[in-house]
Amino acid sequence: MIEVVIIGSGNVGKHLFDALKTSKSVSIAQIVGRNIDTLNYFGGSVDTTTDFSEIKEADIYIIAVNDDSIASVSELVRNKSGVIAHTSGSMSIDVLSNHNRFGVFYPLQTLSRAHEVDFKSIPICVEAHNDNDLRLLMKLAGKVSDSVYEVDSNQRKKLHLAAVFVNNFTNHLYQIGSHICQENGLSFEMLHPLLLETAKKVKTLSPYDAQTGPARRNDTATIESHLEQLTNSDYKEIYAVLTKSIQQVYGKKL
Amino acid sequence: MIEVVIIGSGNVGKHLFDALKTSKSVSIAQIVGRNIDTLNYFGGSVDTTTDFSEIKEADIYIIAVNDDSIASVSELVRNKSGVIAHTSGSMSIDVLSNHNRFGVFYPLQTLSRAHEVDFKSIPICVEAHNDNDLRLLMKLAGKVSDSVYEVDSNQRKKLHLAAVFVNNFTNHLYQIGSHICQENGLSFEMLHPLLLETAKKVKTLSPYDAQTGPARRNDTATIESHLEQLTNSDYKEIYAVLTKSIQQVYGKKL
Repeated sequence: MIEVVIIGSGNVGKHLFDALKTSKSVSIAQIVGRNIDTLNYFGGSVDTTTDFSEIKEADIYIIAVNDDSIASVSELVRNKSGVIAHTSGSMSIDVLSNHNRFGVFYPLQTLSRAHEVDFKSIPICVEAHNDNDLRLLMKLAGKVSDSVYEVDSNQRKKLHLAAVFVNNFTNHLYQIGSHICQENGLSFEMLHPLLLETAKKVKTLSPYDAQTGPARRNDTATIESHLEQLTNSDYKEIYAVLTKSIQQVYGKKL
Repeated sequence: MIEVVIIGSGNVGKHLFDALKTSKSVSIAQIVGRNIDTLNYFGGSVDTTTDFSEIKEADIYIIAVNDDSIASVSELVRNKSGVIAHTSGSMSIDVLSNHNRFGVFYPLQTLSRAHEVDFKSIPICVEAHNDNDLRLLMKLAGKVSDSVYEVDSNQRKKLHLAAVFVNNFTNHLYQIGSHICQENGLSFEMLHPLLLETAKKVKTLSPYDAQTGPARRNDTATIESHLEQLTNSDYKEIYAVLTKSIQQVYGKKL
């Protein structure tokens, strides 16, 4: 049985709780948070506290708080013997180096409070200061996910950067698509099968091979017509820069 | 029974054939194409020809060829009494205005020869020069798809522009993510659950509400660190332009 304390009652804390509680070999000893409202989510199914002096003993303390608070929050479990692990994509493991046993437990996914996810498919990136703790964190990760990776802090930083492109920036492109639909009396719903297929495709085909469209074909007439149609200057700039970059990849300059 | 001739044996022709042949109330009279190799795909299951003088009679002629060839190919069925419809997202219905009965039958999806798609979920955008032909094209669309829309040429043009953002440009962001992974000894597979979830999310949440990340949070320290990490000048420019646009949407200027 792995005893876990989750510190932080936000999105990541909630989703980790939901995932970990399904494992028979994991026991969630406590959820610790400052926000009584979000703690209420956990109801009577687990011990919760807002009092950081009352943190229980556990094998692993998962710190699921904002990047900026990780260092200070980790000080509150300074005297504990368990492994302290943060859940951040961009913070180095070294932010916890004041501790004897420390590591990282990073679920690579976009987690919204309102949106259910299948945790089994979420890659968990694990790192630890020593091999025993790495094994322990990997064991815990394996209880909730089918994809567990050992990823060092530098790799994790790059993964987080790549995630900004495929998640945050992609979502902004969806927003632009949605805006164009809205302006022309079209339902954004019409684009959903297309964008979903675009995402599914790169599971079997590399993005390099999957690329289609006017930039890939170097179809300058269509590119010019599209640029003319775009009245929003940011959208126009995004269109131009992405087109240039695609042409660069396929060796066709404007 | 709706009799259909498909002109063009490329991706769109192939996928339309596969979809239409499943309907009991559609009969595919013929596939017409110049390329004997791609025609071979259809095997003995349907009449095929490379001879444009041998085109059969049908209710609907679907012209599934490159945008630039639509006008000239349509001349080959000038003497036919059926409805002539092209399948292009960006071409106006007027490219066929030399004909008596003409329209558009545009499946809004990215169709690769090698990749199976569920045609039932593909939105089909239909337009016609007269109401009877519109009804006929909508009836045919309804045989293969659960989402049939009447979309005029101007709307379709805008839809095609929006599709470039959510499909072509999104795929390029995937490629950048894949490149960053590759450079750092990481598998692009790790990002797949994230990018798939990003696409699924906007079915239930608007892209406006779904937006997360450093640009949305106006987290300038992370943005600066990411820009520093990007050595490829195109990627850096894409990062900067998309970040600026997201900040613009959420009212936070750099």
